[in-house]
Amino acid sequence: MTYQNRDTQIIQYKPLSLLQIEAMLPHLLKRKNIASYDGNCVFIGNRKDYPFKKDFISCATVEDVAVAIETMVTQGVGPWIAAVHAMAMQADLSKNKSSLVADLNLAKERLAKTRPTNTLIRYRVEEVFQLAKGAIESNQDPAETILTRIDQLLDEMYTHYGLRGQIGAQQLEDGDGVLTMCFAETSFILAMSIAKQGGKKLTAYVPETRPYLQGARLTAPSLQEVGIEVKLITDNMPAAIMAEGKIQKYMTAADLITLDGHVVNKVGTFQNAIAAHAHNIPFYAFAWGCDYNKPDRASIEIEYRDPSEIRSCRNIATTTDDIGALYPAFDITPPKYVSGIITRHGILSPFDLKNGYEEEN
Amino acid sequence: MTYQNRDTQIIQYKPLSLLQIEAMLPHLLKRKNIASYDGNCVFIGNRKDYPFKKDFISCATVEDVAVAIETMVTQGVGPWIAAVHAMAMQADLSKNKSSLVADLNLAKERLAKTRPTNTLIRYRVEEVFQLAKGAIESNQDPAETILTRIDQLLDEMYTHYGLRGQIGAQQLEDGDGVLTMCFAETSFILAMSIAKQGGKKLTAYVPETRPYLQGARLTAPSLQEVGIEVKLITDNMPAAIMAEGKIQKYMTAADLITLDGHVVNKVGTFQNAIAAHAHNIPFYAFAWGCDYNKPDRASIEIEYRDPSEIRSCRNIATTTDDIGALYPAFDITPPKYVSGIITRHGILSPFDLKNGYEEEN
Repeated sequence: MTYQNRDTQIIQYKPLSLLQIEAMLPHLLKRKNIASYDGNCVFIGNRKDYPFKKDFISCATVEDVAVAIETMVTQGVGPWIAAVHAMAMQADLSKNKSSLVADLNLAKERLAKTRPTNTLIRYRVEEVFQLAKGAIESNQDPAETILTRIDQLLDEMYTHYGLRGQIGAQQLEDGDGVLTMCFAETSFILAMSIAKQGGKKLTAYVPETRPYLQGARLTAPSLQEVGIEVKLITDNMPAAIMAEGKIQKYMTAADLITLDGHVVNKVGTFQNAIAAHAHNIPFYAFAWGCDYNKPDRASIEIEYRDPSEIRSCRNIATTTDDIGALYPAFDITPPKYVSGIITRHGILSPFDLKNGYEEEN
Repeated sequence: MTYQNRDTQIIQYKPLSLLQIEAMLPHLLKRKNIASYDGNCVFIGNRKDYPFKKDFISCATVEDVAVAIETMVTQGVGPWIAAVHAMAMQADLSKNKSSLVADLNLAKERLAKTRPTNTLIRYRVEEVFQLAKGAIESNQDPAETILTRIDQLLDEMYTHYGLRGQIGAQQLEDGDGVLTMCFAETSFILAMSIAKQGGKKLTAYVPETRPYLQGARLTAPSLQEVGIEVKLITDNMPAAIMAEGKIQKYMTAADLITLDGHVVNKVGTFQNAIAAHAHNIPFYAFAWGCDYNKPDRASIEIEYRDPSEIRSCRNIATTTDDIGALYPAFDITPPKYVSGIITRHGILSPFDLKNGYEEEN
């Protein structure tokens, strides 16, 4: 299988260096601010209280990391990055114990089940578990082996972010209003930054993204930090402002893409995509790729979270405790509403993912 | 112009009496809990802090009432009901003064400009102003004249609510999941109650309706109070639960309907309607009628409110103060997304409003 045609699409770009990318990123997305391991604890950048607090949650056990992931201390790529660092920590904690492999296996199982919808976390912890086992068999340090692999993965991920950012930036035109949803992280922020550096004036319309307000708390301040004009809206407003002609592009991340082109992302992504379609606005999802183990929408497990989270906002009640509620954390946008998947290979049709597309960061 | 065909549509219903209707209503919608005047003050049922407080805002001047309307102490039909009571209060306050008519005129102007999108408030204060002038000219008490007219208007309004509730109930089927938006008040609550009394099991899916949370605070508790099963969701979830097959009907109120069938209602109504259309779910708007002075969408003035309200939720910050924001309070659903307008004459096509349809409560 060759990707020659696709790769030639991006020959026009001089890839950004890792340092260039790091310099363009806002606080939240800088490498060390997502998750790290200092030999004792895993530190996870606390997105739950940002921008009111800019702190880290320190985790001394795998269980601490798992709970941090479950309680949304981090999200997006944060969970897998925190999880693989937790695997390295477990390798140190169980060092020289006969239970080392069993402990790593338990850690892997615990971390894999923290969030059911996004599958990347499972693949990543499985990968580093296998590497650690190999290291143990050949008398190498499993924690070091994992940390070396994390560095490789992150180098690759940020390099790919840079390419996707460049490709996304090319879609943006001077004067565009760009709708997003939730926190589309590095690809999207880079696309906006690169387009702005190229002299394009952009306005980002950011839905607040209830119940956790990732749009209001993470996306809006991060875009403002890199100099993009921001208009925060509530989640009921995208179609209203589309009708006013304010939106020219709709761009989000994707937590998972099926082989047949269904885009799974934060709940709300789908209804914005339907509204965009009705207004002839293209919808692009930035993605690491599709999941070959997820052929179609029937194979997706949508995470339902605690309904009590719907009855409050930043710990303030929005109604009385006895009101029934429902909290699907993600939704599924069928390929007919998706104009393109922005990958490092260029912009792929959601209907064409099965034809020679590699899994990647 | 005759309405015979339309009126025969509803001959099958034995209209509910005003007492029957009052008995079916939840706390918030009972007549005296919307707004009243005791000869000294106008009391407005405080929807801003409901259900956390169940109190009234007491207003001793027209300015107090206007500010209460502007700050969303009441909404839906509440603003015009509060406003006409304020006109009665002004008639008493200026009684025997030479400035009486001028004072009433000032009161009318102040009240009319409180909320620009919903036009009913302007028509109602104009009507009672003219009645008061007539009363003054014929040496009758203008406050009494206004209060008598208010009673007539409310009798008529609740009678019409009953008819619309019966017609709406007929559309609901056993097992239906019903999406709504914001607080669709009496017609919708009655439709659900009447259908339930007819043995139909219903589940209401209620978007919280940011930024003021009318769905979470007003609709969800009110539906629960009358015995309807409620599932509160956030505003980004309607399409996600439609895709799961949970929604069979979408029903809202309408703040204004143009002669060519555009439905103006709380922001979010439009994007839910687009999503409903994409899922073959009918969208019905309950309405007092269309506005003959509003021929089309170009004639609608959409109220933009203070963007700072987007940066908080129940007075808790959702982001930092320096983030730009946008707050359109209403949106416009074009007739192609509207399956029917539920009026006391039956269910009208939004494309047919111009052919013999009377203005009413």
